[in-house]
Amino acid sequence: MNAVDIINKTKRKLQLTEDEMKYLVNGYTSGEIPDYQMSAWLMAVCLNGLTEEETVALTLAMRDSGDILDLSCIEKITVDKHSTGGVGDKTSMIIGPAAAAVCGVAVPKMSGRGLGHTGGTIDKLESISGYRVDVEFDEFADIVNKTGFSIISQSGQLCPADKKIYALRNSTGTVDSIPLICASIMSKKLALNADCLLLDVKWGSGAFMKTPEDAERLGALMEKVGNAAGKKCRAIITDMNTPLGCCIGNSLEIKEAVELLQGKVKGRLYDICIELTANMLELAGKGTISECTAMAKEAIASGKALEILKETIEMQGGDSRVCDDTSLLPQAKYSHVIYAPFDVEIVSVNAEELGMASLLLGAGRISKDEEIDYAAGIVLEFELGDKISMDAPLMTLYSDTVSDFSEAALRAYHAVGFRTLTEGALT
Amino acid sequence: MNAVDIINKTKRKLQLTEDEMKYLVNGYTSGEIPDYQMSAWLMAVCLNGLTEEETVALTLAMRDSGDILDLSCIEKITVDKHSTGGVGDKTSMIIGPAAAAVCGVAVPKMSGRGLGHTGGTIDKLESISGYRVDVEFDEFADIVNKTGFSIISQSGQLCPADKKIYALRNSTGTVDSIPLICASIMSKKLALNADCLLLDVKWGSGAFMKTPEDAERLGALMEKVGNAAGKKCRAIITDMNTPLGCCIGNSLEIKEAVELLQGKVKGRLYDICIELTANMLELAGKGTISECTAMAKEAIASGKALEILKETIEMQGGDSRVCDDTSLLPQAKYSHVIYAPFDVEIVSVNAEELGMASLLLGAGRISKDEEIDYAAGIVLEFELGDKISMDAPLMTLYSDTVSDFSEAALRAYHAVGFRTLTEGALT
Repeated sequence: MNAVDIINKTKRKLQLTEDEMKYLVNGYTSGEIPDYQMSAWLMAVCLNGLTEEETVALTLAMRDSGDILDLSCIEKITVDKHSTGGVGDKTSMIIGPAAAAVCGVAVPKMSGRGLGHTGGTIDKLESISGYRVDVEFDEFADIVNKTGFSIISQSGQLCPADKKIYALRNSTGTVDSIPLICASIMSKKLALNADCLLLDVKWGSGAFMKTPEDAERLGALMEKVGNAAGKKCRAIITDMNTPLGCCIGNSLEIKEAVELLQGKVKGRLYDICIELTANMLELAGKGTISECTAMAKEAIASGKALEILKETIEMQGGDSRVCDDTSLLPQAKYSHVIYAPFDVEIVSVNAEELGMASLLLGAGRISKDEEIDYAAGIVLEFELGDKISMDAPLMTLYSDTVSDFSEAALRAYHAVGFRTLTEGALT
Repeated sequence: MNAVDIINKTKRKLQLTEDEMKYLVNGYTSGEIPDYQMSAWLMAVCLNGLTEEETVALTLAMRDSGDILDLSCIEKITVDKHSTGGVGDKTSMIIGPAAAAVCGVAVPKMSGRGLGHTGGTIDKLESISGYRVDVEFDEFADIVNKTGFSIISQSGQLCPADKKIYALRNSTGTVDSIPLICASIMSKKLALNADCLLLDVKWGSGAFMKTPEDAERLGALMEKVGNAAGKKCRAIITDMNTPLGCCIGNSLEIKEAVELLQGKVKGRLYDICIELTANMLELAGKGTISECTAMAKEAIASGKALEILKETIEMQGGDSRVCDDTSLLPQAKYSHVIYAPFDVEIVSVNAEELGMASLLLGAGRISKDEEIDYAAGIVLEFELGDKISMDAPLMTLYSDTVSDFSEAALRAYHAVGFRTLTEGALT
């Protein structure tokens, strides 16, 4: 077996065996197969695809490159959830506690940091003063056993193959391949090893998948891989053309999550959180979807989900008082309001562009290891379809590090498409 | 401009600009662009192809990565010839002197060494005792001015980009791409910078191109690139399903070339040499094809071509007496005759397999820097279609280093397909 033969097979659309896939992944992880051979293979995959069998084999080889967690110490049924990422996505902090509020369900979760226009759950949580994301497994299991919920950062011992392959894909134009995206996500999720796995596959301007068809394909493939690995696994497809909720930016999103759990936020964010939580509960065998929907709503309405979030923050060393008083979260020194230039109706919102504007304000990072401005971000004063009067606020930009808002404001302004209510023309 | 954007363009079949192609080739040659980005791009080219404009831009960028020879010191019109390589191809040593025998024509040639089942002209010439292949440009030009013909090995200063890219292609499964093959060949030929260029594009089992259609495509593309660079350039397509001539192996091929120039060899090898020489002369403006064909035949019949080969060998320090007495060439210690097992008609010959058998005898190298057995090789006692009586010799295997012929004999035997003359069945 050698790498050139394997590259040639994929190039000629011949199916690789399980052993060949293992040879490739293990060889690359150990450094025996050099970057330049792996990147040639990755490009062949981008252009020729992989079969379902190959994607399963690739995912399992990547999962097996590092530790696989043993969650048997967690007494409840474990449900993990993964979102393919988007702008303003703070659902993990809401649906984790909401699902854990139901008897017998636990949500042990590992998340990543943000890169580019999408934020990362770990960065958002770190905006809570004192919150520790680097928690060892025993403590993690202990927190999950006590509160039913914990989010920590991805351990370095999980899926080293994915880490190395992802970095290579990023610098070789081989990111946008459905089988490679599937293997990257699923290898990490299968290494975390929860009993059930809900996949939230997003499509639209703010997401990796630009069309609902691609999201469907990715979702179906991830379900097949999850099932092949013996997991209860379901993918649901959600729209990420517009941001999720009205807040974009780390502490701003924590604030919105807390407010939702306080019962103060309804609309699309609330609806999606209920749908995701209900599906997690249904996967965990807690009842029919309509029963589980009722349980999800009750978890929030009763305040039980907020209580769980508070306990978890407390156990991870964070300032849990933010659950009662969000003004304790980092506050920005500078702000800038963008007003409606005339009477308008909001006809489109480009989530990716808002994410980029937020990045300019300091809320994200372009390259790894950059410092983040936790208070920076954008608060939208509308939902899609709203009518806004002339000179009423459209959105507010915040930053603790950038005082000149001109570039971010331009970008944020152009991310919103409106119709003038007097003339009916699109601007 | 950055490498990832360029990779992504090719991946999405968007045409690269000339500047992008230069950026890529220069960046890779200088080491700024790493192997793993280049190999991803090469794979994208293998699977998506390049346009003609892109192939021209790639070739010129590769040509410009090193020296371009100034042949103005050569008084005659210069004609170069390139063959895409095959088993038993000794035409360079024949048609170079034959073309140079015609008044006003010079053939300055640089060649490479063999790898795998195909031999290299430089290795063949080195089987002549004393022949120097590493000759500086001034001496090379001097020899060409005096005799009209010289073959030396490719200078390291020519096309460093090609050298680096070729090595990478070899280890990343990205060899078989018509635009990449075209750019590799043409960049070197354009750096040698002769006025006219004849391209002998071979197809068949012993060649890179397996079908005549692929050979036509490669030939047409090389003509376009050559013309775009201002050269008189023509491609002719020849069949390499059967070896060219009856000798395979370094000194054996020199022997056959000398014997052809002595007027002792006719058949397919002679016909192809006349056709190639006539085309070179016609490109050089020496007359119509039929006039040039007559000149080519006369160059051999008169002994003038042999005289030129002899003078050139002499000037390059080689033992030129081999042109009168081929027994002065390296002779093998061991030999083995394969006989016809019954009365047979030869219905097929697999050139690649014979090349592999010859390699097993020591005539070639699998990896660079391996020693070569100059005396090793195979002499066929038939041409395709011949009828051979039972127990008459089919071929003779030679080696100076391998005394056990079993493996090579098996391979060589199976390279020949015959029909039994008694029963009419294929074996």
